[in-house]
Amino acid sequence: MLIALFVLAAMDPVYAEIKKQHAQNIERLQQWIALPSIAAENLASEEGATKMMALLKEAGFQRVERVATDGKPGVFATLDAGAKKSLGLYFMYDVKQYDPKEWSSPPLAAAIVDKPGMGKIMIGRGTVNQKGPQAAFLAALLAFKAAGQKLPVNLVLVAEGEEEIGSPHFHQIVKKPEVQQALSKTIGVFMPSAAQALDGEVVVSLGAKGVVELELVASGEKWGRGPQKDVHSGQRARIDSPAFHLVQALATLVNKDGDPAIDGFADAARALTADENAMIESAAKRSSEADAKKTFSVTKWAHDVSWKESLVMLAARPTVNIEGLVGGYTGPGGKTVLPNRAVAKIDLRLVPNMRFDAAVLALRAHLKKRGFGDIEVNVSGGYDPTETKKDAWLVRAQQKTYASYGIEAPFWVRNAGSYPGFVFTNPPLSLPAGHFGLGHGGGAHAPDEYILIESATPKLKGYDDAIRSFADYLVTLAEGS
Amino acid sequence: MLIALFVLAAMDPVYAEIKKQHAQNIERLQQWIALPSIAAENLASEEGATKMMALLKEAGFQRVERVATDGKPGVFATLDAGAKKSLGLYFMYDVKQYDPKEWSSPPLAAAIVDKPGMGKIMIGRGTVNQKGPQAAFLAALLAFKAAGQKLPVNLVLVAEGEEEIGSPHFHQIVKKPEVQQALSKTIGVFMPSAAQALDGEVVVSLGAKGVVELELVASGEKWGRGPQKDVHSGQRARIDSPAFHLVQALATLVNKDGDPAIDGFADAARALTADENAMIESAAKRSSEADAKKTFSVTKWAHDVSWKESLVMLAARPTVNIEGLVGGYTGPGGKTVLPNRAVAKIDLRLVPNMRFDAAVLALRAHLKKRGFGDIEVNVSGGYDPTETKKDAWLVRAQQKTYASYGIEAPFWVRNAGSYPGFVFTNPPLSLPAGHFGLGHGGGAHAPDEYILIESATPKLKGYDDAIRSFADYLVTLAEGS
Repeated sequence: MLIALFVLAAMDPVYAEIKKQHAQNIERLQQWIALPSIAAENLASEEGATKMMALLKEAGFQRVERVATDGKPGVFATLDAGAKKSLGLYFMYDVKQYDPKEWSSPPLAAAIVDKPGMGKIMIGRGTVNQKGPQAAFLAALLAFKAAGQKLPVNLVLVAEGEEEIGSPHFHQIVKKPEVQQALSKTIGVFMPSAAQALDGEVVVSLGAKGVVELELVASGEKWGRGPQKDVHSGQRARIDSPAFHLVQALATLVNKDGDPAIDGFADAARALTADENAMIESAAKRSSEADAKKTFSVTKWAHDVSWKESLVMLAARPTVNIEGLVGGYTGPGGKTVLPNRAVAKIDLRLVPNMRFDAAVLALRAHLKKRGFGDIEVNVSGGYDPTETKKDAWLVRAQQKTYASYGIEAPFWVRNAGSYPGFVFTNPPLSLPAGHFGLGHGGGAHAPDEYILIESATPKLKGYDDAIRSFADYLVTLAEGS
Repeated sequence: MLIALFVLAAMDPVYAEIKKQHAQNIERLQQWIALPSIAAENLASEEGATKMMALLKEAGFQRVERVATDGKPGVFATLDAGAKKSLGLYFMYDVKQYDPKEWSSPPLAAAIVDKPGMGKIMIGRGTVNQKGPQAAFLAALLAFKAAGQKLPVNLVLVAEGEEEIGSPHFHQIVKKPEVQQALSKTIGVFMPSAAQALDGEVVVSLGAKGVVELELVASGEKWGRGPQKDVHSGQRARIDSPAFHLVQALATLVNKDGDPAIDGFADAARALTADENAMIESAAKRSSEADAKKTFSVTKWAHDVSWKESLVMLAARPTVNIEGLVGGYTGPGGKTVLPNRAVAKIDLRLVPNMRFDAAVLALRAHLKKRGFGDIEVNVSGGYDPTETKKDAWLVRAQQKTYASYGIEAPFWVRNAGSYPGFVFTNPPLSLPAGHFGLGHGGGAHAPDEYILIESATPKLKGYDDAIRSFADYLVTLAEGS
């Protein structure tokens, strides 16, 4: 208790610096947002890695290295504070694609505008996913530095520029011997985030589903039936249709209700534990079904299930999803062609103990068994599920830090979305991993992505408080175990 | 015999004018191609109708009128030559969409280039489908005029600007009392075409399949399940997928082999007659399977049938075809969305005695019965099948004209493609209808569409001979019955 009081008192100069550096912190974030790196479009990845390295050097990392991969470059950095404990960090410098036409404020301008009822927000691609929270974390380091204080923990950071395309080469970064060795000495790895929901609530997630992103491609060429170029649709009378071949294959991937029907796909999925069920029970009680239905613009959940059961499904169901369908003529009106090729963009979500590799193998075998072995399965990225035990100090320290702000942050089973935490939580590292950070944002992957800068409501924290939460988290992590 | 000799001798000045006007005829066609009217893109339909009217006036039509429809305007025109017989003509002034990037020569430039082994061809959208042959017919009229000769038949012409979207309003043009009355006095209706295949062969088709063009649209809104906007694909665990709903509906439209499986769809289809079977037997003997497989870039016909059976299928099978699939994210790579909407562009081909209206009703009932009644069936156009009896003078005169060039042109059951001939062949008009014209072209609906201008091979006729074939056809039609 005495120690805790001492620590809090000692933090005052750090807090003061956060306030003092507000303008520079905002400007630093705006400059970062002005440089979008988009792997899917081969846009400015090299520049993004260079910028990431400059930001890390500025924040005090002594060792900052570009890490080449078979794809876009990554970054490995360490900050030795002479502390007893080391903490791992996972950063991404890439952002999602965007169409400026759909935005109310230019996506690279990072303009600060008023959002009635919420406060001042910054609108821009990457504001919340993930440059805003990451820049807030770096601002916390700069505040320690300006206050003349050593960091309470050493840092080991890995960053990639392909998160938004499914991290196809991130394992190459983490598997480098010097990176692996440095990470193995940490108490766990976290990614800065703006964790507050619109109502201010926070959960501490204990993992994330895995994902496989892929394209299924049916073509006359690979099938050996149907045309090898688009032909007039009158020929359909005697020529097979690769598009229908794809449709017939897709129809086998789910059952009548739309649930996964890929042979063996979910065999390894483990059932929810009693602990996990309790987390869901509790979540169902404290959260609003009506709000969720509004957010996701639905009137019914799949299978017409209850609110609690929808949360069970969200946490525990593997999925087969069609992200997109593209084949033949896609313009306005019709065009009488028999297309030679059709593509379905698919994502599969995996729960523990399913595996990325096994899911891909199951899909291929399923298709082959049903006469669709000619359909190309082009996997573009993805990863295993991620799990962290709730007794890990990494996540308990998160709860403790949130509690110091009066926010009760219950554990949540796992995110329905995915991130490549498996490189940390799987053997050989087998580290705890997760997300942390106060503050609020929205519109990830969508137009008008934003992060809250100055809050007009007590339930949501602004950018300075987000920075402060990172400073406090480092102190808390150093304190206990 | 004396009469025929007289007629042929009298044609010499007309033939001389065709040669003399070669440059103007080419230029007139090039100018027409430079003005693309594309109903699907709402592009220049009014200008296209105006141009069509100007071309008809120039060619000697005394009465030329714009005909308003609920869609794009049509044209009605008559040429009274004081002749005993009247001939109907069906023109279209619209063309198919195109993507200039896919063309070796700009699609509106109508450049004349050398095609090794074939001769000089004109490349451009509409060169063969259908401006080239139509302009050739008009050039024939201009040759009669320049030679100071009256036309051997009177003409009644109807033109539309929506052929490429399935002629949704063409019946409105033909059903106008003055149009109907004028057409009712004709011996039949024909559309100018470039009928020679690559090997120089010509067939006289006795009809065409009917067609229904439509979009099937699955959406969260109409379904009452799934999201009403695109949401993150992590939500797939508890939210239904309109894209899979569409896929499941599509999969019911065909059987395992890709053949139509819509309840009742083909109930009215009549079997081939002995006469029609004989036509197919004969076609199978005189035409090359290897050439056809090369043309359509296939290695196998559906069901692995023989060459003859493939022709039976082409003539006699109703079809269900996917023209295009569009849903969710369609750009490069993937995007983790659960789309709220997916669309399949479909065409159905109909054989006698199937009907457009009945096919649409059957499709709707089929979907409804299987729990897909929420899927929108948006019909954009189409028509009944077309049939003409082989004893009609319109088609026998075609054979006779072709024979005067030493070309044996056997009857063919019907085109596998479709055109709105039913407005002429169905009651109340019940007229013969078909296509006619020497010359050769290719690439209709595709990049590098072309028409042969100067032939380098004796088996294919160039543009001047195409014009001449129209002049001869008019004379032949006037001669006999």
